[in-house]
Amino acid sequence: MAVYTEVSDGDLEKFVAAYDIGRVVACKGIAEGVENSNYLLQTDRGLYILTLYEKRVAKADLPFFLGLMDHLAAKGLACPTPIRARDGQVLRELMRRPAAIIGFLRGMWPKRILVTHCAQVGEALARLHLAGADFPMRRANALTLAGWKKLFEDCRARADEVKKGLAEELARELADLAAHWPSGLPEGVIHADLFPDNVFFLDDQLSGMIDFYFACNDAFAYDLGICLNAWCFERDGSFNATKARALVRGYTQTRPVTPAEVEVLPILARGGALRFLLTRLYDWLHHPAGAFVQPKDPLEYLKKLRFHRSVKSASAYGL
Amino acid sequence: MAVYTEVSDGDLEKFVAAYDIGRVVACKGIAEGVENSNYLLQTDRGLYILTLYEKRVAKADLPFFLGLMDHLAAKGLACPTPIRARDGQVLRELMRRPAAIIGFLRGMWPKRILVTHCAQVGEALARLHLAGADFPMRRANALTLAGWKKLFEDCRARADEVKKGLAEELARELADLAAHWPSGLPEGVIHADLFPDNVFFLDDQLSGMIDFYFACNDAFAYDLGICLNAWCFERDGSFNATKARALVRGYTQTRPVTPAEVEVLPILARGGALRFLLTRLYDWLHHPAGAFVQPKDPLEYLKKLRFHRSVKSASAYGL
Repeated sequence: MAVYTEVSDGDLEKFVAAYDIGRVVACKGIAEGVENSNYLLQTDRGLYILTLYEKRVAKADLPFFLGLMDHLAAKGLACPTPIRARDGQVLRELMRRPAAIIGFLRGMWPKRILVTHCAQVGEALARLHLAGADFPMRRANALTLAGWKKLFEDCRARADEVKKGLAEELARELADLAAHWPSGLPEGVIHADLFPDNVFFLDDQLSGMIDFYFACNDAFAYDLGICLNAWCFERDGSFNATKARALVRGYTQTRPVTPAEVEVLPILARGGALRFLLTRLYDWLHHPAGAFVQPKDPLEYLKKLRFHRSVKSASAYGL
Repeated sequence: MAVYTEVSDGDLEKFVAAYDIGRVVACKGIAEGVENSNYLLQTDRGLYILTLYEKRVAKADLPFFLGLMDHLAAKGLACPTPIRARDGQVLRELMRRPAAIIGFLRGMWPKRILVTHCAQVGEALARLHLAGADFPMRRANALTLAGWKKLFEDCRARADEVKKGLAEELARELADLAAHWPSGLPEGVIHADLFPDNVFFLDDQLSGMIDFYFACNDAFAYDLGICLNAWCFERDGSFNATKARALVRGYTQTRPVTPAEVEVLPILARGGALRFLLTRLYDWLHHPAGAFVQPKDPLEYLKKLRFHRSVKSASAYGL
């Protein structure tokens, strides 16, 4: 929730003039997205999102992210379409930052998750995996084992400030995941951050998926594991097996999973929980005093992690 | 810059159903306004602002603010129109907070102030004063001498943390203003917070004034003094006499001022500077660690205050 960069009116008008989208009539900072500055841009032809990429997103990755959105939208997926300037470019510069104008998607993210949302998210995730199959660019997942280890080392000395014994538990968890992390699974482009605030619905029908700024190449089933973490736990930390079943079935009806994927789903879900636990822990310990963004509670993910550790097989998720 | 209250999709749909504005297709938190939660609400008929009033705005004052906007918009002023629900009400409730839907105004606030902006703001301020003349409700100005004194007492002990000698300078200033504060000036409804981020322009033409949540009854010339503070100083603290002249002439061409108003303009401008100095100082000293909103520098207004103190007559402002 933040706008980091203010855009001057003169610069904005000059920037927009390079596109064939009409004349700016309003531009408002949106209180969404913590990585970038996002504006809702209204022209006399319609609504757009203007994004300025702040330093947390690597500039070298932007062609991958924007190219992927373009590729998926062209395949009919409900995701934002980057708008080309008259010179054909989608990635340009504004206020000395990389910037892009993206099509506006209708819908709202669900504050109260229903089973039907989970079923549709599962299906949409599978469609995304299938549609990405012939996307020609690649991006390694920076937030997998090696990345987790680095995050942990940066937090280790202070982890027990958040909870006594946390450093030790995370060290054990990391060692365990490193020893058992699967390889050779079906893989391709994954979203890697398909949380409720990145999925829009209109009248409870999925209308869009946004925020592809963690997308990368990795095991499809890991993406499913992330979604189980993101969609299937209640506020009190309890696991909603009905939602999980709906999500997993929505997925497998569109992209059938292999027996190997079924078998390792619990450990992938554990890895997904650890990934968000670690980034939240890092932000919790390192956010500057007085920063705009209230860090999220890392311990929510400790509960989730422990749940997945306790699971005997993927049947817990309805597989 | 903040959204304090999250609105659930179900609650939003129910709320909007009470209006004749069509069906919600999107709703995004806006990173503007520190007192309230503001959303840009898109329906299949158009754009609106949805405001949830947080505790910093007194509920008892809301009928005044919304009634005033309604009154001014009906008189043709470029200000937001509160939308009536089917039952005729403009002030309703959402997420257990007072809430209203307001018409969307096109335009953007100017990040770089031009002389033409100042001239138009002066004229618009005068129009506002004239249009408010027959508004039947009244609201006392809570941020005048007595209010300043209270703010100062709440900051006095810690003021020197911000700048050595500040407490003493403010005490002297308050005593001086109390001894010389004028009365009996032409008065009526004033905006009391007409800063650049509350005035929209489209192609450098004033298209709207927003944020009437400090509006109250007080001397018209005090409002002019506030605008001199808000519009006529450069980033380095220097006073731009050309902008002041444009602003004051824009005003007086629409509402001629009396000799008494001319004479006291310097002290009113000093009072305006002190008012923002004190609220900023209060926020600076009292804002909770990790709050969303970065407090603004109070000392910017100490410079402005000293400038107005040094002024010999209103001729410094072009009067």
